[in-house]
Amino acid sequence: MNPAPSSASLDHLVKLLGKLPGIGPRSARRLALHLLRKKETLMLPLASTLAAVAEAVTACRQCGNLDTTNPCSLCRDPMRNARVLCVVESVADLWALERSATYKGHYHVLGGVLSALSDTSPDDLRLEQLQARCQGGQTDEVILALSATLDGQTTAHYIASLLEELPVTVTRLAQGVPVGGELDYLDEGTLSAALLSRLPV
Amino acid sequence: MNPAPSSASLDHLVKLLGKLPGIGPRSARRLALHLLRKKETLMLPLASTLAAVAEAVTACRQCGNLDTTNPCSLCRDPMRNARVLCVVESVADLWALERSATYKGHYHVLGGVLSALSDTSPDDLRLEQLQARCQGGQTDEVILALSATLDGQTTAHYIASLLEELPVTVTRLAQGVPVGGELDYLDEGTLSAALLSRLPV
Repeated sequence: MNPAPSSASLDHLVKLLGKLPGIGPRSARRLALHLLRKKETLMLPLASTLAAVAEAVTACRQCGNLDTTNPCSLCRDPMRNARVLCVVESVADLWALERSATYKGHYHVLGGVLSALSDTSPDDLRLEQLQARCQGGQTDEVILALSATLDGQTTAHYIASLLEELPVTVTRLAQGVPVGGELDYLDEGTLSAALLSRLPV
Repeated sequence: MNPAPSSASLDHLVKLLGKLPGIGPRSARRLALHLLRKKETLMLPLASTLAAVAEAVTACRQCGNLDTTNPCSLCRDPMRNARVLCVVESVADLWALERSATYKGHYHVLGGVLSALSDTSPDDLRLEQLQARCQGGQTDEVILALSATLDGQTTAHYIASLLEELPVTVTRLAQGVPVGGELDYLDEGTLSAALLSRLPV
């Protein structure tokens, strides 16, 4: 099915847009036409920003965050506590934690979680770097901020056992009722976790 | 809410992606990270294709189709019947008709339909150009391939009255049961249209 038979380059653009996650052929055609309608305000700025970001942004050699500087601006920030490391699966999770504006320590991006299904082994994750950062007494605490899924929790346990011998405290995120969550709509697992971790008022 | 506090250019990319239709802030962040993971195979090709298409693609002065040549390749194709014009609302509709691979005439893209809600008047559409193409006897038939919506049908009636005095036959798309459509799931309007336009077997 040829979406834009009249122009090979337009056709190529639609194909590339269709490779983006969550964008099917129909959305790709819609995006291409929208971009062509907003040539000056969106299409050209997007083209140059994509090229500039692809050129400038690299993974921080210390924490794995994406930034134009290396080490990244979070690792270089003197206001942040370098003695606490927050272990996250991906940069998306790092961003989510930054949006909550609660955490003022450093990060460690694993680049995935252990998973039998997607064939991710410990060697695929940045675990050696994490061990190195926990040795030599520069780190007091490692917070495991991994998803409350099977793979996330498997990875959390694996890391906890990995760091057992090292002089760091390993903690994990609390589980319970989400803010704004209605009890009636919560699953049994969350409710029972919230009940077991109940706190004095 | 700052999605990527550690890099201004990454933040800018997320903002631009968030301006695309159907892409919210969360999808924009996901797209940006996906693009950074596929820097060589997707991000850089997309950047250069966007720039190239923005540079090269223009609206055909004859039919309004988008192409790298002007008049477009459909208008220049000697195998297509230039005496039949198919009037469509947008280039997206033109592409849809081309995918059906049934129509071998020329097109005329209106650039919208008459709409009181979105404040589109006859002056906003390419109607003068359509009248000009129907004068002088170069055109035999005008097919109104407009959506079966209120605005689409209003526009179809308006164009039909506009071309009344000119030496062209004005036709419209058939209405009826879609291919693969189950009667039980069709609305009453479609069923009654299909019944009224019934054909001998």
